[in-house]
Amino acid sequence: MLRFVNHFSTKNIDPFTIEKGYEALRFEAQSGEVGYYDLPRASQPLVGEVEALRPAIDKKYNTIAVIGIGGSSLGIKAIERLLRPGTPNAKKIVYLENSDPISVSQVISQIDKPRTLFIVISKSGSTVETLSIFKRVIVAFDLKVEHSDQVMVISDEGSVLAQYADENGLRRFVIPSNVGGRFSVLSAVGIVPLTLAGFDTLEVLKGAEAFLERFWERKEDHLLQKAAYYVTNAQRFPMNVLFAYSDTFEEFGKWMVQLWGESLGKRNRRGERVGLTPIALIGSVDQHSFLQLIVQGPLNKTVTFMHIAESEESLMIPQLSLRYLEKSDFVNGHSFNELINAQCMATMKSVIESDVSVDDIEWKKIDEHSVGGMIIYYELLTSASGALLEINTYDQPGVELGKQILEGYFRE
Amino acid sequence: MLRFVNHFSTKNIDPFTIEKGYEALRFEAQSGEVGYYDLPRASQPLVGEVEALRPAIDKKYNTIAVIGIGGSSLGIKAIERLLRPGTPNAKKIVYLENSDPISVSQVISQIDKPRTLFIVISKSGSTVETLSIFKRVIVAFDLKVEHSDQVMVISDEGSVLAQYADENGLRRFVIPSNVGGRFSVLSAVGIVPLTLAGFDTLEVLKGAEAFLERFWERKEDHLLQKAAYYVTNAQRFPMNVLFAYSDTFEEFGKWMVQLWGESLGKRNRRGERVGLTPIALIGSVDQHSFLQLIVQGPLNKTVTFMHIAESEESLMIPQLSLRYLEKSDFVNGHSFNELINAQCMATMKSVIESDVSVDDIEWKKIDEHSVGGMIIYYELLTSASGALLEINTYDQPGVELGKQILEGYFRE
Repeated sequence: MLRFVNHFSTKNIDPFTIEKGYEALRFEAQSGEVGYYDLPRASQPLVGEVEALRPAIDKKYNTIAVIGIGGSSLGIKAIERLLRPGTPNAKKIVYLENSDPISVSQVISQIDKPRTLFIVISKSGSTVETLSIFKRVIVAFDLKVEHSDQVMVISDEGSVLAQYADENGLRRFVIPSNVGGRFSVLSAVGIVPLTLAGFDTLEVLKGAEAFLERFWERKEDHLLQKAAYYVTNAQRFPMNVLFAYSDTFEEFGKWMVQLWGESLGKRNRRGERVGLTPIALIGSVDQHSFLQLIVQGPLNKTVTFMHIAESEESLMIPQLSLRYLEKSDFVNGHSFNELINAQCMATMKSVIESDVSVDDIEWKKIDEHSVGGMIIYYELLTSASGALLEINTYDQPGVELGKQILEGYFRE
Repeated sequence: MLRFVNHFSTKNIDPFTIEKGYEALRFEAQSGEVGYYDLPRASQPLVGEVEALRPAIDKKYNTIAVIGIGGSSLGIKAIERLLRPGTPNAKKIVYLENSDPISVSQVISQIDKPRTLFIVISKSGSTVETLSIFKRVIVAFDLKVEHSDQVMVISDEGSVLAQYADENGLRRFVIPSNVGGRFSVLSAVGIVPLTLAGFDTLEVLKGAEAFLERFWERKEDHLLQKAAYYVTNAQRFPMNVLFAYSDTFEEFGKWMVQLWGESLGKRNRRGERVGLTPIALIGSVDQHSFLQLIVQGPLNKTVTFMHIAESEESLMIPQLSLRYLEKSDFVNGHSFNELINAQCMATMKSVIESDVSVDDIEWKKIDEHSVGGMIIYYELLTSASGALLEINTYDQPGVELGKQILEGYFRE
């Protein structure tokens, strides 16, 4: 269960703006132009297909190596990290993503080849980091790729990687062509590796589906209000902070940063540069780091607090009074979960009192249903904000120039 | 060796501003008001003291558990992560920092008590997260604290934690009172755990000392130009991005975020809210995430690129041409280090062409000397920016309110 409370004033938001946001999303979904709206339901049969593969996979492999970067890894990591404490027996997942030689060689050195299933993920099929690492893996492990059941591929239909997979008889899964990389976690991209690892992805999809239905029924309009507020005040508040109170949100924050930043940082139809800058923080650590800037620095940020009411982990702060340290005894006998939640509430209160625009998202607990709901929430929020900014939320033209320059360096 | 190139135009910067920055730092250092300037030299004898303890420690312990948060952990993690690949035999360091019940119980469950040395770090001595976790550790491991050589304390002279340590006969190290938490990594805070773990902290200090000397000799004025540029353009560019090309910079980025954000987000002498927002990114991962926003979003950010010319790790991209995937063959036969550096250069070029203010920091390689230099570089940059913003760079009044509210919750 998720609970949403907007603490900013919505009285200056034009109701028409909210309708415009809703209608834009409705149109995107119904026209079939944007495919992620279908994924919560459309990916459910995929879970069954992948589950059917599991007995054979379980027998041979205890680790999944995901070879992918950006939209092909961030979402998987986000869900894995959130659900891992509640699914301790899921297979280990390792990520080969950055072209950093130290990381790549470290991860490769830890892989037990016979027990590892490799999943190569690239929407375009031509991501240079992913293909370079894949080549390195082939050579490092003397991997016989042809007709191997140790390598799977996830890519767009017809991509060069898909053609490579077919030629070599590799099992292959498709990302629908109308689903962008950063919106793809509920497609095969996330479902295949997470299901094979043993996570309950069906519940994730059902959670997303339930939230989406409520949204279409106009029962989650807080989301449209928030998008309208962000876009209306984009000049005043160019930054949007997500302050999540649990280390398990670290990768979720990175996923959100890609989704928000890459979708909304654009030239609009008039060629003007628009965009909102995402910042992901972790409480209570960043209370000792970034909070001072929020509370007393320029009022140029909105802040979303996120916290978990009930934790699976009931670790207690002992009833232990240490001489000279009695000042901290006020938390004795409480759980660490009570402490971190109280820190969230106290910080939220002090941030609101500093005149910062705040909203609050409470998870009853971390479970599959809420994870799915939260993913679709951020995707819808992004789409609504993009529609109101009058940009193409789903492309990323700005990163092409760098790729061309890169090729130029090597071809010279 | 570090090489600094500012790609932004300095022609509009008042030379007087640069002199003002330099003189402010000179005054802070000479008056003794701000202590971190002394650390590169003053901490050198401490390394010897700690080295003298090592034979006894090495015999008993193979792991160091750092109990601390914010300024008491971020700097240690930053240096450890950067130097670990070149110092693979250093003792394992685990961090108990967040009051997140899942993390705390996970780290505690992995600790082998008889082989672990616990170091409790808190400048004020009363940090609630740190003391709560310390109590949990005492109970979980039935730790006999009195006169134990298994627990060390690092805190301000006279703090409650220092008094507790003395009463119990624990070995204790002091953070100079004129050194703030986020500026303390070159004090006992960083030196004690890193030296005990086996890192060459003397070289880190010497690297910092060498850079500092060159700065005082006016041989590193690029730093003052950058601070002057940032402050002069703070309204136009409220955000400062560090885009570092290696996963090993991840914790360095978090350390920088605390230093920059908490130091510069303040009310100035006229009560106005000032501040610059730090954002830490990792290349090439964030080329697939945040880059679009930098290149086509609003021109409200400066970007610092950081990269390593030579890597210890010579991992190669194989000369392997895979049918259908030939488009990525342009990097075949090159090293991953060449690839990630070329990605940095290409991205930097495309960002400069997008009219973003850029500077470039090149490390010849990651070594202790450069790590020390880079730490003092960011500290000086922060101090110079704070002086030009006319704020108190070294306090953090904004986080007090939240702490009071927190106590209120529990005392009710």
